[in-house]
Amino acid sequence: MKPLNIGMIGYGFMGRAHSNAFRKVGNFFPIDRRIVLKAACGRDGAKTQAFAHTWGYESVETDWRALIARDDIDLIDIAATNNVHAEIALAAARAGKMVLCEKPLAMNPAEALKMVKAVEKAKVPNMVWYNYRRVPAVTLAKQLIDEGRLGKIFHYRAKFLQDWTISADVPQGGQGTWRLDAAVAGSGVTGDLLAHCIDTALWLNGGIKEVTAMTETFVKERQHALTGKKQKVGIDDASAFLARFRNGSLATFEATRYARGHKALYTFEINGEHASIFWDLHDLHRLQYFDHRDDGVIRGWRSIHVSDGDQPYMKNWWVPGLQIGYEHSFVHQVADFLAGVASGQLAAPTFRDGLATDYVTDAVLKSARSGQWTKVKSA
Amino acid sequence: MKPLNIGMIGYGFMGRAHSNAFRKVGNFFPIDRRIVLKAACGRDGAKTQAFAHTWGYESVETDWRALIARDDIDLIDIAATNNVHAEIALAAARAGKMVLCEKPLAMNPAEALKMVKAVEKAKVPNMVWYNYRRVPAVTLAKQLIDEGRLGKIFHYRAKFLQDWTISADVPQGGQGTWRLDAAVAGSGVTGDLLAHCIDTALWLNGGIKEVTAMTETFVKERQHALTGKKQKVGIDDASAFLARFRNGSLATFEATRYARGHKALYTFEINGEHASIFWDLHDLHRLQYFDHRDDGVIRGWRSIHVSDGDQPYMKNWWVPGLQIGYEHSFVHQVADFLAGVASGQLAAPTFRDGLATDYVTDAVLKSARSGQWTKVKSA
Amino acid sequence: MKPLNIGMIGYGFMGRAHSNAFRKVGNFFPIDRRIVLKAACGRDGAKTQAFAHTWGYESVETDWRALIARDDIDLIDIAATNNVHAEIALAAARAGKMVLCEKPLAMNPAEALKMVKAVEKAKVPNMVWYNYRRVPAVTLAKQLIDEGRLGKIFHYRAKFLQDWTISADVPQGGQGTWRLDAAVAGSGVTGDLLAHCIDTALWLNGGIKEVTAMTETFVKERQHALTGKKQKVGIDDASAFLARFRNGSLATFEATRYARGHKALYTFEINGEHASIFWDLHDLHRLQYFDHRDDGVIRGWRSIHVSDGDQPYMKNWWVPGLQIGYEHSFVHQVADFLAGVASGQLAAPTFRDGLATDYVTDAVLKSARSGQWTKVKSA
Amino acid sequence: MKPLNIGMIGYGFMGRAHSNAFRKVGNFFPIDRRIVLKAACGRDGAKTQAFAHTWGYESVETDWRALIARDDIDLIDIAATNNVHAEIALAAARAGKMVLCEKPLAMNPAEALKMVKAVEKAKVPNMVWYNYRRVPAVTLAKQLIDEGRLGKIFHYRAKFLQDWTISADVPQGGQGTWRLDAAVAGSGVTGDLLAHCIDTALWLNGGIKEVTAMTETFVKERQHALTGKKQKVGIDDASAFLARFRNGSLATFEATRYARGHKALYTFEINGEHASIFWDLHDLHRLQYFDHRDDGVIRGWRSIHVSDGDQPYMKNWWVPGLQIGYEHSFVHQVADFLAGVASGQLAAPTFRDGLATDYVTDAVLKSARSGQWTKVKSA
Repeated sequence: MKPLNIGMIGYGFMGRAHSNAFRKVGNFFPIDRRIVLKAACGRDGAKTQAFAHTWGYESVETDWRALIARDDIDLIDIAATNNVHAEIALAAARAGKMVLCEKPLAMNPAEALKMVKAVEKAKVPNMVWYNYRRVPAVTLAKQLIDEGRLGKIFHYRAKFLQDWTISADVPQGGQGTWRLDAAVAGSGVTGDLLAHCIDTALWLNGGIKEVTAMTETFVKERQHALTGKKQKVGIDDASAFLARFRNGSLATFEATRYARGHKALYTFEINGEHASIFWDLHDLHRLQYFDHRDDGVIRGWRSIHVSDGDQPYMKNWWVPGLQIGYEHSFVHQVADFLAGVASGQLAAPTFRDGLATDYVTDAVLKSARSGQWTKVKSA
Repeated sequence: MKPLNIGMIGYGFMGRAHSNAFRKVGNFFPIDRRIVLKAACGRDGAKTQAFAHTWGYESVETDWRALIARDDIDLIDIAATNNVHAEIALAAARAGKMVLCEKPLAMNPAEALKMVKAVEKAKVPNMVWYNYRRVPAVTLAKQLIDEGRLGKIFHYRAKFLQDWTISADVPQGGQGTWRLDAAVAGSGVTGDLLAHCIDTALWLNGGIKEVTAMTETFVKERQHALTGKKQKVGIDDASAFLARFRNGSLATFEATRYARGHKALYTFEINGEHASIFWDLHDLHRLQYFDHRDDGVIRGWRSIHVSDGDQPYMKNWWVPGLQIGYEHSFVHQVADFLAGVASGQLAAPTFRDGLATDYVTDAVLKSARSGQWTKVKSA
Repeated sequence: MKPLNIGMIGYGFMGRAHSNAFRKVGNFFPIDRRIVLKAACGRDGAKTQAFAHTWGYESVETDWRALIARDDIDLIDIAATNNVHAEIALAAARAGKMVLCEKPLAMNPAEALKMVKAVEKAKVPNMVWYNYRRVPAVTLAKQLIDEGRLGKIFHYRAKFLQDWTISADVPQGGQGTWRLDAAVAGSGVTGDLLAHCIDTALWLNGGIKEVTAMTETFVKERQHALTGKKQKVGIDDASAFLARFRNGSLATFEATRYARGHKALYTFEINGEHASIFWDLHDLHRLQYFDHRDDGVIRGWRSIHVSDGDQPYMKNWWVPGLQIGYEHSFVHQVADFLAGVASGQLAAPTFRDGLATDYVTDAVLKSARSGQWTKVKSA
Repeated sequence: MKPLNIGMIGYGFMGRAHSNAFRKVGNFFPIDRRIVLKAACGRDGAKTQAFAHTWGYESVETDWRALIARDDIDLIDIAATNNVHAEIALAAARAGKMVLCEKPLAMNPAEALKMVKAVEKAKVPNMVWYNYRRVPAVTLAKQLIDEGRLGKIFHYRAKFLQDWTISADVPQGGQGTWRLDAAVAGSGVTGDLLAHCIDTALWLNGGIKEVTAMTETFVKERQHALTGKKQKVGIDDASAFLARFRNGSLATFEATRYARGHKALYTFEINGEHASIFWDLHDLHRLQYFDHRDDGVIRGWRSIHVSDGDQPYMKNWWVPGLQIGYEHSFVHQVADFLAGVASGQLAAPTFRDGLATDYVTDAVLKSARSGQWTKVKSA
């Protein structure tokens, strides 16, 4: 089998999640490339070295430019902070590398559009790590919708609730808390959490026409982990919006890091003419499904434990009833990415799909500032 | 409309539940008798008077013999402690009164059998207040089974868990705690809680062939509320048994008052060849139903919110989605009792059905003492 | 005990719910008035007669003016359609009667304000039937908030989802479907369902400052049940809004009759600094409560089965673990109303509280038309 | 780091689960040995080769004796069928290899006892793959019990329900269905499913004193996959027993493959004086916990989403709220096994612990045959 040499940029949470996916995929899915963890790249040499050791990367780089310059790297995986996505991706595309990029694609639509143009011009395989599409229960939801089981859609409802920044003592900036630093993250929960909700929604329910939004920063100043100084907080702590989809359905979206009791409660519900669907990341193996066409007296929400061999991805894992977890969505994404490369039909979400989400988050932030209903651009 | 004059014996928890049912039934169900709360009867004159006032009973008696002797009483409702059920019922039957009796029917099968013979000889309408049959979700379960939706039954599983007697300071005997006094209650959780589980099971799944059981009294001595003395506890605090039903299915039953966290958790589950059912008194409006014949990828346990007009009893109440509660099962029982009297086809559970349950609880207690599998007599 | 003579206007769903409450309250709560169902009033004489018979009303009127004119009526209960609330209430207040009125209080804030002024000028006890405040789990939520257990509130989230009007064959107007006729109902789900959500929210979380809203009418024309003609539908089928409360918290509200699988799914969630609360009408006995101050490793959402004697209203009913239902919230409301009359401290929600909700629904409808954030007036 | 060379026997479901654990453990846990997948062993050369390729085993054997004879193998992992556990383990111990063995340890206690003696005599590290102890929620349950939070235990309740053999067309014997062949599996659900329940129970609640049991074989004859002939079924399809623990608590246990709607529903509940615990494999990340010492009005079952860094094993994975799955319990077991080897304190369950479980399953099967309460031997 031909090797596929990976160059990984970043050794944090996502660096680990992606590395794990690359290492595991061949044990469970039929793939046509031998994945080689060729090089890990990070600014801190010692940390990068430790990371490479833990995950079995063959070599280490501390400058991403050097990594991209290497001939023995086929694929650049960007697991670095949001503020460097564009620069790295543009260089990688120019170098003819495949490019995978963590979400959100960019700091703003202008950057994202450049990235799309670059990978499309270079004709390099590309993908954004919106991993939740490939939780089996979510993929099943897509399948049910595409089969027309729901009929005309009336409502879409999504939220992503966390509670880890309620304390005013949480700093901004630095490792683990860079998501609170607007200069590095671009935005707060809008780009971090809502972006996930939006990516799934666009996939399941099509384009969004317009939005009206509200954001809030509950804690106005936080110490910066790098400077040690109290600084104004530039991100949004909470963000909610109403939307109209192009298919005529109405939607509510909300994300926050101030919802006590929720660690990562990403949920969505879709109400159609005939059937409805509900999903919850905290119980990711279950899909709740209601079908009005069921016999009246025994009609009810079905709690589907998505773990059977005929349900998406599950025949590759264990036996019915036994769960997989968060990390497996990344494994599925690598498997599908490779199948897409092999077939010439790139698996979604591509950079262009990532741009579509960035257009929505941009409209949300603009509407929150202006107080006006705001149109969403098409990617 | 012809009046139906009620004579109520007992003013405790069950006296209230039955009175409420008699008062309400005509507001919600079409009945052919005008129910009159004619007389309340209890040993404590003042308390009986207060009870009569609250519920609108026209008169008061302090001797049940006097009540039965009255010509203006059509129906004797026995809501008194277990140890007086038989004596009162025999007298009432002899006097030609209709007789309703709280569960369990009697202190033991010998007493129960006499009661059955008395009402059958006197040809008086009779019923035991096993009210849970008429929670709409339970009645729906019966309907689904009778339609054959489950196919051959493999397993029956029931339990009734409470936690109110864990403290050694709870007394035995007296008001509110007479259920801990073997002389008044007959047995502990076997006759009190398991009896409910058994009545439902015999109704849903047919007769039980044999049992092997285990009981325990965790707190060996308790102060008696009437004598003030510490006395040996004669009841069973916990009782569990394995059983084989006549239809070949296997069963586990358990009841206890030592299950922290459960106030009145009566649950049952039935597993059939094609479908399964689960119910839980703590969420009494829901019936969980799984049907293997559903399309594979969307197969799951359905949580049926039993509140639609086409589900048992519900068209007589409010609108879909709005719940009724515990007390309504008694209202349904009165409505069905009256319909049975009108039609000449007595509604179950009759005294003979109550005897069947007493035969099972008797076998359970015997098996717990002997350590042997024990056959169950047929009623 | 001094009698309290009730004059009931309307014999539909709410006429039944209120009558049941009046009949039952004295069986379960200590009240200082003897409630007498004096007269039922409705335009259709035969139906009103049947209703009076079922519920035990002593007499019947077919003109509400005649009812109000009677000296033997102490309290007028308006369970008629929204379009006649104001006229009847004004007349009743002028006649010095106590006035209870179904929600929403009026067709618009102008009407509602007149009603408030009328009852306040006449100094007659008054109340709006926003019954959900008195579901025990909801009352417990209020108690927990008032004790300060949640701390500063960040988020409020409420929705009321139904699915009964999805079919285009459901008519507008007439009995059972007058809620689809804008001339009779005033608005659609905004006044019908959102009004419940708003009343609870104002009670639990204080005033709303401003809103931005979106409404939709999915089925544009429906046959009118009375005229038999297809007519334009004037109500909103779905309504959602974002809001900022005066206490700084953010909110999302949504109501619809197009959410397949939900019969009457009224839910709310409140996220505070220390604790969060969630409630769901479909499982009305449970309150979900999360407290961050719990020991870390065993922190979790608690499913509180609100049925103990020390929880609101429950000591008056049965024993722990046994549920009450929808109708009991009305019983509680009557009990509290009477206690308020006795003490001189009127129980909420008064007409003025009803006006506050009407100001919010009015702002919602206006914002939905204008597309602008809209300020909410204070009542 | 010193290598640890693994010799894996078996390439089925468990061969995969164990291999995955060996491959992953070093990416997530600090271990002091470099794990090398040295050799895979199976009777079918081609299948073994394919398995070795997928998982990266360096070499292949088709005779386990040859594998054990190799000097470059440090650890023998027995993932073969039950009927060969003893023979292989005895040889491995004699050869001084570390031995890991799939559950149940042996075909019967006599075999198991020999295995225990062999590993103890040879002083080789040994372990049985009862993996469910190391699902984080289950480990947390153990921790809460050991801290004394539950107080005196009154009740233990466990069941393991599946539905995959209901059809009479499922064969016995052969790959995937050898668990239905008594000659290969030893027993049916008793050794397969109940053994899991028992291992956890002994760990959490101490020894079992005596049992009374009932088993059933619903389908009496099945075609044998290897012979092609209809043969009598020798295994138990369902098995249930009552038990008394040495600590005085009462228990019910049940396992079946005839419970429609359940794929792998392993649940246990423990009721103590102060607190109770419930766990369910279908939602393996949640531990339900009730603590009576909580403030009365807000007392309820807590649904603990066991995914925080201070909960067992979770700091080694992702971030709070993100789930791991079934396979991770095996990873934890390897990590703990290695830590045990390093410290000289072997991690449980050792072979001796496995013997204890076999004594219970043996007593269950004997009691089911005799109909008598049966004492359980101590390991």
